[in-house]
Amino acid sequence: MNKASIVSIGDEIISGQTADTNASYLSRELLSLGIPVAGFYAVGDDIDSIVQSLNRASSDADIILATGGLGPTDDDVTRQAFAQFLGAELQFHNELLEKIQILFATRGRKMPENCRRQAYIPAGAEPIANKLGTAPGIVAKAKGKLLIALPGVPGEMKQMFQDSVLAQAGEFARDQAIEVRKLKCFGKAESEIAALLGDLMQRGRNPLINCTVEHGVITLYVIATAKDKRQAQKLAEKAEELLRSTLGELVYGTEEQTLADVVGEKLVQQNKTIAVAESCTGGCLAKLLTDTPGASRYFTYGWVTYSNAAKTTELGIPAEMIEKHGAVSSQVAQAMARNARKKAHTDFAIGITGIAGPTGASEQKPVGLVYVSVDSVSGCDTQRFVFSHDRDSNRRRAAQTALNMLRLKICI
Amino acid sequence: MNKASIVSIGDEIISGQTADTNASYLSRELLSLGIPVAGFYAVGDDIDSIVQSLNRASSDADIILATGGLGPTDDDVTRQAFAQFLGAELQFHNELLEKIQILFATRGRKMPENCRRQAYIPAGAEPIANKLGTAPGIVAKAKGKLLIALPGVPGEMKQMFQDSVLAQAGEFARDQAIEVRKLKCFGKAESEIAALLGDLMQRGRNPLINCTVEHGVITLYVIATAKDKRQAQKLAEKAEELLRSTLGELVYGTEEQTLADVVGEKLVQQNKTIAVAESCTGGCLAKLLTDTPGASRYFTYGWVTYSNAAKTTELGIPAEMIEKHGAVSSQVAQAMARNARKKAHTDFAIGITGIAGPTGASEQKPVGLVYVSVDSVSGCDTQRFVFSHDRDSNRRRAAQTALNMLRLKICI
Repeated sequence: MNKASIVSIGDEIISGQTADTNASYLSRELLSLGIPVAGFYAVGDDIDSIVQSLNRASSDADIILATGGLGPTDDDVTRQAFAQFLGAELQFHNELLEKIQILFATRGRKMPENCRRQAYIPAGAEPIANKLGTAPGIVAKAKGKLLIALPGVPGEMKQMFQDSVLAQAGEFARDQAIEVRKLKCFGKAESEIAALLGDLMQRGRNPLINCTVEHGVITLYVIATAKDKRQAQKLAEKAEELLRSTLGELVYGTEEQTLADVVGEKLVQQNKTIAVAESCTGGCLAKLLTDTPGASRYFTYGWVTYSNAAKTTELGIPAEMIEKHGAVSSQVAQAMARNARKKAHTDFAIGITGIAGPTGASEQKPVGLVYVSVDSVSGCDTQRFVFSHDRDSNRRRAAQTALNMLRLKICI
Repeated sequence: MNKASIVSIGDEIISGQTADTNASYLSRELLSLGIPVAGFYAVGDDIDSIVQSLNRASSDADIILATGGLGPTDDDVTRQAFAQFLGAELQFHNELLEKIQILFATRGRKMPENCRRQAYIPAGAEPIANKLGTAPGIVAKAKGKLLIALPGVPGEMKQMFQDSVLAQAGEFARDQAIEVRKLKCFGKAESEIAALLGDLMQRGRNPLINCTVEHGVITLYVIATAKDKRQAQKLAEKAEELLRSTLGELVYGTEEQTLADVVGEKLVQQNKTIAVAESCTGGCLAKLLTDTPGASRYFTYGWVTYSNAAKTTELGIPAEMIEKHGAVSSQVAQAMARNARKKAHTDFAIGITGIAGPTGASEQKPVGLVYVSVDSVSGCDTQRFVFSHDRDSNRRRAAQTALNMLRLKICI
């Protein structure tokens, strides 16, 4: 079975200043293709150390994925290290330089001279296009191994992996056909979903069911292996059906879909609109909704009424209501949703108020207490949650939970 | 100079299911003792792979710190791998078993039989006490190298490192001290900052200056090495002064500070308040501001006027202005900021309007075009930007740029 090794390059990683999230990301993606990872290496911005790691990595594996060290500064030496490892000279590519120059030109800026070095890649290797930044990646085949360098900037790395590397890596893995499907779930913890699935998640099964969790979203990977693609697809399909019938409305989507994508799709289909009124989430919900391209078709108005005065002047929440029940109360959440819907003339509106932390808690109202209200023509549904002690996770979870409440209202 | 290597052990790490935070932690701790880290290794729960990593790690460094694989289950094989690496047998220690039994007893539980294996360590090695869990650590000296195994559970690992390892590792390092500082910059590309710094960023210098970039924020690391801590601090201080005088207002903060943190701090100090009115950023700016705990002291009102109607009804932007100049125009950005400030009665207000993409562009107005306006009692400052072709990065960059404009208004 073909394996991969991952090499993370950068002084900031081995000095502990930057957490290396790239290796985990690549490892999950490769595994979903059926390529297990033999190990990670992290080294500093030093040509000899990088070459040594590439040697070690390629003695463990058939695919070597390196990230970092492709920037324009003197400490970016991955290009040289790759050339040395491949026994090739660095070659200048005029079309790469032009792309970099255009990138600066569209931003109305002159390309600094040091970016010129990003137009060099080892002879015999191919560049990988970078849509988001100046550093092209590198892909080379040598001694039956696939060798890839991507930038360390996570956004650029991910985009380039999805656009250009995924297919090549998948082909490398293919003395067998693998079908991978992702099911996205929201509403229960990983352990609860595992309990519902029982021995479906046992190791060694085919399809293999893996599971990751991020910000409350559980992703189930269905990895079906067979002799040909059609057989693998059939196996995956059957497993997907079983998972869907077991998990019901916990499954909200597939592949890379977010809750906001799914909600947005439904709103477009039903020709409906939405407004939001946020307090503790401070714009997180509006941001999630507008992360989806084309959100202006259904999302029109958002209020971040962070102060009590803003709740009163912008959304008409009576000061007496806030006085009596507190700004963090089901009454205020409900009034926020109702009044937002009325003011925005939308089909749906969401109101959120809570205590994100770390301060602001009382004996009755702990950090993590959040009220979410979804108002529509069929009435107002308000729910109380107590999330965690962590500000970031409370805010994110509250916004996601609000989207999930809306999804259950419009999708089921 | 003595160096360290860090080996992280566990299938959950190399499969990308668990982020390895232990390696970064240990690296920072070692660096602060004056021991730089040569590299990280991560391997699965497999004796041969662990032994191979220990061999590689000890060929790079004098101190080898391994974490993980000391638990009671079948996949915990670090004890065996250490024994194999050291060429020693595992020896049973009755006093270790007793400690484990006592730990279970104080929790009112019976020790499961599989915990017995945690009382074994390689002959010639010493146990490291674990106050928080059942797994003792292992410390051994072999061929002039210091070899340490700690549990993978971060809390246990940290406590054991601080209690037992720090002093031993420090003795190994005695003749050098290292001081690390971070400077955070915003407003120019990495390549432009590198050009400004010139040969300050050359390799092999002391202090060494490294650079990373994320979402437009450039982090400069100053790593000074000297015989003692005071000398290292002096060196770092001098380099920091030089960087600050070279980069001027591009430097916005230090260590982990975000632009929103710095802006928030200044607003608190000056007892000022802020409101925001967003279109294309759809809540990103309000979210960034409210990511900072205690933001309610200065952030009060936010509007996400995503539709033209919302701009008119909520912020009083004349429909004729939108008709004449377009919703994405300096006029509308300015009116959004001005009217937001008026409605919210704040000292500052920010207006943002632009084309996040991928759709919505025209010949005159490309994707990435954004107008940001900052209004205050001293007047309204509006700037035009063209960011990239990527929706996410446009939105993030626009919000960060707005914070930076505000910073330059209030901090300088």
